[in-house]
Amino acid sequence: MDREIVKLLSEAGGVAIFPHVSADGDAIGSSLALAMALKKAGKDVVVYVEENIPAVYRFLPGTELTRFYDSSDEAMDINLALDTGDVGRLGTRGEAFFKAPCTVNIDHHVTNTKFALLNYVDETSASTGEIVYILLKKLKLHIDTDMATCLYTAVATDTGGFKYSNTTAETHRIASELVSAGIDIGELSQRIFDNTTYPKLRLTQKAIELLEFYENNRLAVVTFSRADLLATGASDEDCDGIVNIGRSVEGVEVSLLVKEKNAEEVRVNLRSKTYVDVSEVAAAFGGGGHKRAAGCTVNGTLQQVREQLIEAVKDRL
Amino acid sequence: MDREIVKLLSEAGGVAIFPHVSADGDAIGSSLALAMALKKAGKDVVVYVEENIPAVYRFLPGTELTRFYDSSDEAMDINLALDTGDVGRLGTRGEAFFKAPCTVNIDHHVTNTKFALLNYVDETSASTGEIVYILLKKLKLHIDTDMATCLYTAVATDTGGFKYSNTTAETHRIASELVSAGIDIGELSQRIFDNTTYPKLRLTQKAIELLEFYENNRLAVVTFSRADLLATGASDEDCDGIVNIGRSVEGVEVSLLVKEKNAEEVRVNLRSKTYVDVSEVAAAFGGGGHKRAAGCTVNGTLQQVREQLIEAVKDRL
Repeated sequence: MDREIVKLLSEAGGVAIFPHVSADGDAIGSSLALAMALKKAGKDVVVYVEENIPAVYRFLPGTELTRFYDSSDEAMDINLALDTGDVGRLGTRGEAFFKAPCTVNIDHHVTNTKFALLNYVDETSASTGEIVYILLKKLKLHIDTDMATCLYTAVATDTGGFKYSNTTAETHRIASELVSAGIDIGELSQRIFDNTTYPKLRLTQKAIELLEFYENNRLAVVTFSRADLLATGASDEDCDGIVNIGRSVEGVEVSLLVKEKNAEEVRVNLRSKTYVDVSEVAAAFGGGGHKRAAGCTVNGTLQQVREQLIEAVKDRL
Repeated sequence: MDREIVKLLSEAGGVAIFPHVSADGDAIGSSLALAMALKKAGKDVVVYVEENIPAVYRFLPGTELTRFYDSSDEAMDINLALDTGDVGRLGTRGEAFFKAPCTVNIDHHVTNTKFALLNYVDETSASTGEIVYILLKKLKLHIDTDMATCLYTAVATDTGGFKYSNTTAETHRIASELVSAGIDIGELSQRIFDNTTYPKLRLTQKAIELLEFYENNRLAVVTFSRADLLATGASDEDCDGIVNIGRSVEGVEVSLLVKEKNAEEVRVNLRSKTYVDVSEVAAAFGGGGHKRAAGCTVNGTLQQVREQLIEAVKDRL
């Protein structure tokens, strides 16, 4: 951990935390844990979110510290981006982020562009939650049950429940410490992972029905039109994890979820099992992410984008 | 860990290990790890399995130490049952088990009947794999990458990928140690968890289609006839985990998978989320297991058994 960042944070009077747009469990969990710890240390703290917190994470402690940015808000001493690979992932908060006298960027994405004044990027870390855990230790701040709940959520979600290849001995060591802080793993895991909504159940059924396989069954593709989403009553949030259905099938190396956002834009989620670097594929389409999990938003019709992505993946299989 | 068991095992010349019938990841993983460690320590070792090792676990190291019991086999110094709650779970090997001068029973099921000469049952342990890890440490045997692979499989499967309420700080601490032994978590997890067969994919689709909800959606039930299983081409092994689909739905407390074995017998898998003790329900029907995961085989027609189980669960919701 960067000593200067630790020193600045311990001396700061006010800190604003910026998780990335479409915040996931890692972005939200690590932001809430850091916010609660800094607040308990007597600092002014706010977490500026781009959207409402997804329903699945609304049970987490610390959400009262989150709000939308208002242009009349006074700048804090430090604006700190968490789990945010580049300025684009700050969404509409990009300008606000650079208003503070000091900007900090703490992340684990290998594609991080180091856009802040001080940057700490550890791409060997499975989650930003693990980096925040170490940061809190360096800041000598006690990790209470609420903070541990948020950090465990961050770690568990970004490792796919300790299943992805990014999971390390350190990941489990930190998870062990967090469990010791008094969290209820059974209840927490159910809230994070076992909360399938009825629309999601229908969407899952539809996804299996629509699954297509290419390249000797090494590539799995699910294509959702707006009509499919409407028919199942599913929200965008319900689509989380659908891409893993294809990935979980025997012999599949790459799984794609190609989803119509509107008539001109298509969102693509990419997952791989063992050797294809899907962050490279996503980057070629203006997106980013990790080797085994990436995403991009592409201009074009659903069928055009689907064909383009299939071609791009084929070359790497 | 029982000192006498450690002493006896360290002095024994030959040990036969007995995992339970329909062996799962914990039974197989802990048996193979212990077998390899004892073999490396110079002992005669065999793992007597009831059935062929399920396809999903055939990649595990140490399977060459497994075979079927033959009545002409000479008795070993110690016959050791692993992860086996009662004599019934030894299946056809019950008589063979008691032929050794010393019998040992190492397990974590709260319903364990302590049927051996020496019994070590730690129901606070999430998996028998964790107990075997501690046993190997007490025996001062080095845990190599192969043994760690088997033990991680045991721990990861019996905790549902570190999600069930049985997961403790100790579980993660041991997992961390096992990862340090050089295992590849990404590859291992995919082999264990992301190996959905095409029949299983069809079975999953069918299960969602057949899902029924009772008691204000707190009870989820999937009922599979032999015809359903035939139509999807699914094997009994493919049914593993299907009960979790209902359990994962929001608001569901108990999930049942009621599966026709033949015209007279029905197999029922039970899962609960937070408060219903399904091991009690299973026990009332001659089965057993854990608070949140249990099973029983019941005489009757599919519809009879389904109704009986629904009634039994209703009283506890």
